[in-house]
Amino acid sequence: MKTIKRDYVRPLDVKTGRVDLSHGSGGRAMAQLIEELFARAFDNAFLRQGNDGALLPPAGGRLVMATDAHVVSPLFFPGGDIGCLAVHGTINDVAMMGATPLYLAASFILEEGYPLADLRRIVESMAAAAKTAGVPVVTGDTKVVERGKGDGVFIATTGIGVVPEGVNVGGDRARPGDCILLSGTLGDHGMAIMAQRESLGFSSPIVSDTAALHALTAAMLATGVDIHVLRDPTRGGLATTLNEIARQSGVGMAIDEPAIPVDPAVAAACEFLGLDALYVANEGKLVAIVAPQDADRVLASMRAHPLGARAAIIGSVVEDAHHFVQMTTGFGGRRIVDWLSGEQLPRIC
Amino acid sequence: MKTIKRDYVRPLDVKTGRVDLSHGSGGRAMAQLIEELFARAFDNAFLRQGNDGALLPPAGGRLVMATDAHVVSPLFFPGGDIGCLAVHGTINDVAMMGATPLYLAASFILEEGYPLADLRRIVESMAAAAKTAGVPVVTGDTKVVERGKGDGVFIATTGIGVVPEGVNVGGDRARPGDCILLSGTLGDHGMAIMAQRESLGFSSPIVSDTAALHALTAAMLATGVDIHVLRDPTRGGLATTLNEIARQSGVGMAIDEPAIPVDPAVAAACEFLGLDALYVANEGKLVAIVAPQDADRVLASMRAHPLGARAAIIGSVVEDAHHFVQMTTGFGGRRIVDWLSGEQLPRIC
Repeated sequence: MKTIKRDYVRPLDVKTGRVDLSHGSGGRAMAQLIEELFARAFDNAFLRQGNDGALLPPAGGRLVMATDAHVVSPLFFPGGDIGCLAVHGTINDVAMMGATPLYLAASFILEEGYPLADLRRIVESMAAAAKTAGVPVVTGDTKVVERGKGDGVFIATTGIGVVPEGVNVGGDRARPGDCILLSGTLGDHGMAIMAQRESLGFSSPIVSDTAALHALTAAMLATGVDIHVLRDPTRGGLATTLNEIARQSGVGMAIDEPAIPVDPAVAAACEFLGLDALYVANEGKLVAIVAPQDADRVLASMRAHPLGARAAIIGSVVEDAHHFVQMTTGFGGRRIVDWLSGEQLPRIC
Repeated sequence: MKTIKRDYVRPLDVKTGRVDLSHGSGGRAMAQLIEELFARAFDNAFLRQGNDGALLPPAGGRLVMATDAHVVSPLFFPGGDIGCLAVHGTINDVAMMGATPLYLAASFILEEGYPLADLRRIVESMAAAAKTAGVPVVTGDTKVVERGKGDGVFIATTGIGVVPEGVNVGGDRARPGDCILLSGTLGDHGMAIMAQRESLGFSSPIVSDTAALHALTAAMLATGVDIHVLRDPTRGGLATTLNEIARQSGVGMAIDEPAIPVDPAVAAACEFLGLDALYVANEGKLVAIVAPQDADRVLASMRAHPLGARAAIIGSVVEDAHHFVQMTTGFGGRRIVDWLSGEQLPRIC
């Protein structure tokens, strides 16, 4: 992302202008788009270096690298948009490794004809999310594809972070007897998107939970507890996340349906659309797995943070050669919570 | 990119199957695609961790981070494809900072209906390029968009690297009197794409120069010379790259047309299509700017490397308050080599 200062014949027409192919050509129009829209919004000392990459200070510690392509549709939804989602999603992937997120890189794939005014809203939302999180976008890239070869805006973000000494989080560290903690209600992001797509007229709109979770994980790690597993239940929802961890760790999971918080509006929308909140994507929730003697301490640290106010212990890790996730229902029955096998919600993030 | 081993009902049908929306849903089909196609091709210890990000050892030094979205069309072209291009392009952005590339992250945006056999060719080409370069793909992400909302395959790659002590490369370090070096012929990548698009039947096809340049830059830096600027003339070509550096450094550039190597087939194709090789994208070439007393030594190090065999000194940095790039033509005239102002070649990388 080059940010060379120079005078253009006309300033970029952000009010009524549209993305055209010259904005991706490497020439003057691209430099202007980057300078007047991207660099202005994301402004920081690294971007201002004006090179094809960012030169960063030594990180001093084990690194984490995570990447996510964002193709959510619609681009704007109650509670957020693709811009802040692209920041939160990647920060969360870094945070779930027990790392402190440090920097973000962003690659944009724009469709010819997309309104510059909407692009600016997205970029400004992204910049605000990065600023709030304290994780700057230090480098970027912009490409433009012809009309009908994209869908407005796609954003791929990559994050790097550093893991503090003594922190060892991984999907393979769940042990029988461990407690499973969930930071809050399930399904808010996915149902906010679905309600918007289906134009469901609920009395109060369902709002996405999109949020950066690194301050929450930092608070949890600050307890000094050896947290075994952290993971955010995004695509595929809690069900998929627990199945993944069960496989990686070679264990089973036993969860308790009444303990799992679900917002009543989300529960109603799920019922209306025939969806199961266990499989619906979240963008501001995490699962933590810790030894039983540590669970209350970690739970207290979560509840003390605004993003973990509704945290709960939802079950425990069990021995199971089949690595099943089983759930005790509200009626006292038990069922297997399997992997999602088909397509529940496309383009949810 | 999760790589959980498990048995599927049927192996992925890579021969006749196609990408469908379930491959991006976060469920079983996505896990299978990742495991049987991506993880198998990219296989390394970091990917095998099976978490949402990769845990990497401390890097020990100043870091570089660079990102590129790749939307080249067509996806396959003489000399390469989007897969190896996505590896080379990002390695080169890291290398142009004077850094040793260490790791890559890859985000895929797939269009519903894209043949899995072609996707496998792309992924295998990408994996081979990463292996040859010694820079593993340590983490990734896959999204699927509906038919008509993408164009086969887009790949965003992000690289991180580490800058050796004493190396200080940047676009703002060109000084009047410095020599401008070019590592080889201009325009090969762009014209390979254009010839393919226009179905031009040249007697011998023009082959893209796509290549990872980090071994070449390492050889140049091993001379111990203080290299002021390194940059790869990709989109917008040499003309744009030199204009960028001129602005960043607050200097002018004087280049000599007869000194600039252009393959005769590329020159002929440019003439046929009315294009100027100075503006055509390269994917395996670099520009270096060094003090005059160091030029021969750096040039010798370039010529000793296969990717710099045709390296040449093509001009010098001059004082110029207007920051113009001027060229002495083969006929002894002079002309200004301005920024590319419109769209010359869309989707070239």
